[in-house]
Amino acid sequence: MVIDLLIEKILQLKNPSVVGLDPRAEFLPLDLEDAAIERYGKTPRAMSWAFFEFNKAIIDAIFDIVPAVKPQIGMYEQFGPEGISSYIQTIKYAKSKGLIVIGDIKRGDIASTAQDYSNGHIGEVCVFGEKTSIFDEDFITINPYLGADSIIPFLENCDEYGRGLFVLAKTSNKGSGDLQDLLVDGRPIYEIMGANIARWGEGLIGKYGYSSVGAVVGATYPSQIEALRKIAPNTFFLVPGYGAQGGKAEDLATCFDSRGMGGIVNSSRGIIAAYQNEKYSHLNYAQAARAAALDMRDDLAKYINFADIDVNPDSEEDVL
Amino acid sequence: MVIDLLIEKILQLKNPSVVGLDPRAEFLPLDLEDAAIERYGKTPRAMSWAFFEFNKAIIDAIFDIVPAVKPQIGMYEQFGPEGISSYIQTIKYAKSKGLIVIGDIKRGDIASTAQDYSNGHIGEVCVFGEKTSIFDEDFITINPYLGADSIIPFLENCDEYGRGLFVLAKTSNKGSGDLQDLLVDGRPIYEIMGANIARWGEGLIGKYGYSSVGAVVGATYPSQIEALRKIAPNTFFLVPGYGAQGGKAEDLATCFDSRGMGGIVNSSRGIIAAYQNEKYSHLNYAQAARAAALDMRDDLAKYINFADIDVNPDSEEDVL
Repeated sequence: MVIDLLIEKILQLKNPSVVGLDPRAEFLPLDLEDAAIERYGKTPRAMSWAFFEFNKAIIDAIFDIVPAVKPQIGMYEQFGPEGISSYIQTIKYAKSKGLIVIGDIKRGDIASTAQDYSNGHIGEVCVFGEKTSIFDEDFITINPYLGADSIIPFLENCDEYGRGLFVLAKTSNKGSGDLQDLLVDGRPIYEIMGANIARWGEGLIGKYGYSSVGAVVGATYPSQIEALRKIAPNTFFLVPGYGAQGGKAEDLATCFDSRGMGGIVNSSRGIIAAYQNEKYSHLNYAQAARAAALDMRDDLAKYINFADIDVNPDSEEDVL
Repeated sequence: MVIDLLIEKILQLKNPSVVGLDPRAEFLPLDLEDAAIERYGKTPRAMSWAFFEFNKAIIDAIFDIVPAVKPQIGMYEQFGPEGISSYIQTIKYAKSKGLIVIGDIKRGDIASTAQDYSNGHIGEVCVFGEKTSIFDEDFITINPYLGADSIIPFLENCDEYGRGLFVLAKTSNKGSGDLQDLLVDGRPIYEIMGANIARWGEGLIGKYGYSSVGAVVGATYPSQIEALRKIAPNTFFLVPGYGAQGGKAEDLATCFDSRGMGGIVNSSRGIIAAYQNEKYSHLNYAQAARAAALDMRDDLAKYINFADIDVNPDSEEDVL
């Protein structure tokens, strides 16, 4: 179960954080920009190449201290096919270094199209009778606006291919409340969604009691995290919004149980663009990313108690 | 204003329909499949090439009788970078034949990422200081789960680049009601969304009284279309679910005003896979698509009265 692997990596490293690989032109150091332009001119291909080179150096700098990375496909997709190539290369490289990859794709569509997205990202596509995998993320994020039948093709591939989901419940942005906080019979929609996500994940609960079907819950709304934790005790949380967006470590303790399990906190620019922050400006971007990732780990660890677990993959012991 | 162009094409052709370019392996005729495999082997590239060739023949067969096409990016994205290439080639080719292109992408993300999607699809991306367009759809579909701040980057590009949106209000699938029909103070969410979409579109209303910010409203829920029409009289509707999904022409009359304006109805497999339907099986797939598109036009026209409008692009006359 992929959620068990994620939990075990988090506990081994005592680090419940994920680095958002969301490259932007303004994060690229000048020498990398120059190299890209020299190689491919001022083209989408050059940008996509630079993104992958940038990510590779970040991955090399953090793979032994963080359990997972989360590339945001939008940053890559905007540059077309070559951007998508760069996204896929990033996933491959991160996995080759032992990192768990959460593809932040936020797809959602009617069932037949959801099946295509699901096959492409967390399953296999059929190419003239031959099956092949394309994106190959470990987890992806999913938008639930279209309802339960739009989720099923993803659940099926999670089961068949050992993958996981994080379904949007409460996002970290300011406007998230416009729809997600509306009250239905006195209950906010993000809570209704939390209960749905818990139900969708019931068939995919791993040995630590958490499901491979998790929820996205923004760090910027601590009281809502607490409410969701009560509603969905077996649901693992992907928590965006820490750091640059304003979410604080002390507010996130309610995500975690007494073993240090229950959530993973994302930071993107706070890590990958740390070298542009005065605190880390004496370091190159990769070194700065490592230093910032260690600081984030230590910041989160102040409020979390990590259990010692047996992570021998052959062991069938239950540690609940 | 792009919505005016769409309306004028619909009225010129007396055809408020859009052909969904949603290719699937099982729709490909055998000779095209063989040609693809011979050319590129059993690879995603072969599939992507076949999809574009398939689309090209459909476009050639229908461009003079339908106003618009709607490629669904999910079918292409599942095959990775080459699939995305095929999607972009399809958009380019359709536009070269004078068709309006609605990219069915259903993206939705926090503002910074929404900006990337918006730039890539309906604006320009910045490549080391130089601006270039990548996907270049006329309209795209958008998912509103993340709230108003996630819509703004799209509205801004609609204004700057003369593009349009169709925001999901009520989708055509069975499970759409799971979230979209929930009642907030007695009002279903799809109606709340309809009112939001109308408000978001206020600044982009064209000369026929409709906004370039439209709504997706499933043909499978006629009474809900009627309710949305009352709430959002200036909102143009993109209506999926006709034909194969069960939506009927007589149920769609409420989308349209007395001039035949107000909506565009999608059919995908009912057109592009028509040759697999007994009725059209004596025709090749392109001829069958044309015959089915004409039948759909005539079916819809039974319930719609089209005004004669002056579509001289130099004319500034108001026909309201």
